[in-house]
Amino acid sequence: MTPRAREAIESAQVIAGYDTYLELIKDLLGKKKVIGTGMMQEIDRCQAAVEEALGGYDVAVISSGDPGVYGMAGLVLELTLKYPESVQPAVRVIPGISAVGAAAAILGAPLMHDFAVISLSDLLTPWEVIEKRIEMAAAGDFVIAIYNPKSTRRTMQIEAVREIALKYRHSSTPVGIVHHVSRTKEQMVLSNLENFTREHIDMFSLVIIGNSQTYIAGGQMITPRGYQV
Amino acid sequence: MTPRAREAIESAQVIAGYDTYLELIKDLLGKKKVIGTGMMQEIDRCQAAVEEALGGYDVAVISSGDPGVYGMAGLVLELTLKYPESVQPAVRVIPGISAVGAAAAILGAPLMHDFAVISLSDLLTPWEVIEKRIEMAAAGDFVIAIYNPKSTRRTMQIEAVREIALKYRHSSTPVGIVHHVSRTKEQMVLSNLENFTREHIDMFSLVIIGNSQTYIAGGQMITPRGYQV
Repeated sequence: MTPRAREAIESAQVIAGYDTYLELIKDLLGKKKVIGTGMMQEIDRCQAAVEEALGGYDVAVISSGDPGVYGMAGLVLELTLKYPESVQPAVRVIPGISAVGAAAAILGAPLMHDFAVISLSDLLTPWEVIEKRIEMAAAGDFVIAIYNPKSTRRTMQIEAVREIALKYRHSSTPVGIVHHVSRTKEQMVLSNLENFTREHIDMFSLVIIGNSQTYIAGGQMITPRGYQV
Repeated sequence: MTPRAREAIESAQVIAGYDTYLELIKDLLGKKKVIGTGMMQEIDRCQAAVEEALGGYDVAVISSGDPGVYGMAGLVLELTLKYPESVQPAVRVIPGISAVGAAAAILGAPLMHDFAVISLSDLLTPWEVIEKRIEMAAAGDFVIAIYNPKSTRRTMQIEAVREIALKYRHSSTPVGIVHHVSRTKEQMVLSNLENFTREHIDMFSLVIIGNSQTYIAGGQMITPRGYQV
């Protein structure tokens, strides 16, 4: 957590966030009003936060990782903009360490070159759109970072990623998997494009597929930038 | 700067970095040994840092933004791995706020959906590879974040990006430009795909091109995640 994020939480009168994330900052909550709800209730939670702000309170909506990357920043702005300009609360987005950046740091240095970030969650995006993006990212030799790779209900998408990527990249292409990034349970596994879907992957995993130049050495996943070393 | 990065700098005996970045942390340098050189000397600087570490010193190599995104993390690992395993210094990559994340936060919430990050610098990458990636990112309807969009010498690449993107996206597609992200001189401009290359863009700029759903409202650039609000 950056000092700027901490200051924003400390100075806020109301904190809104997913219960799991509120638990992680419980030491900062004190006697603040808390708006916490379970997963899948993002709209209600952010709407309640915006209403508190309309009531004159200083509100912090927390998000894990970077709130600007698949986080709550967009929803808060969208809900705010539904009100007339004269009453709209001011919104500041405070960037954080993105999950993809934190996962990359654990794996070594896989993001030294151009990369694509794709979420496999089809709750809000048609699968055809996601599939096309995987195809284009694979064809463009991007390092590919996958958010939401798999859930109990959704298990085949990551197999489709593997099959599409194998059309363009060698089966030995390095793949890094990080579970529970930046949490105490954090774990990483290095595998390759042929075998990575045999590893444990769930909704708490982030998957990074190397490009044609990525290699593994000394337990590190490295995409060279191109320096002659 | 995260507390973890600050602690690493404070506890290091030697600090290596580009002079401009060393200036930004001069209050933390105290009597530490400093390895600072100008731009374009990344290999020498990182090699010197690795040699200090081989000599038993605790060394911090600093990078602006996230050292794992087009930063120094990969080069340090590559140089370290050239030594026999028995003497290799241990390397920890400490993730930071990436320039793309910081720029997105200033613009609003453009990275709420899948995005591609592309550097236009052709110093270490053939232009044909970069051009193919722009084409694939545009075809896949990714939000596209452009690092190193333009320099005094290199002015046509960003025009090529515009032309390629216009084959796939409407001329009114929002484009955000952030100059000197996270510095005191930070500035942002909102434009569109038709006109954005008429704006001032240089090597201190980062450009974010929206996808087909991105819009501008209330001075904010927003890519909706797909929530029904």
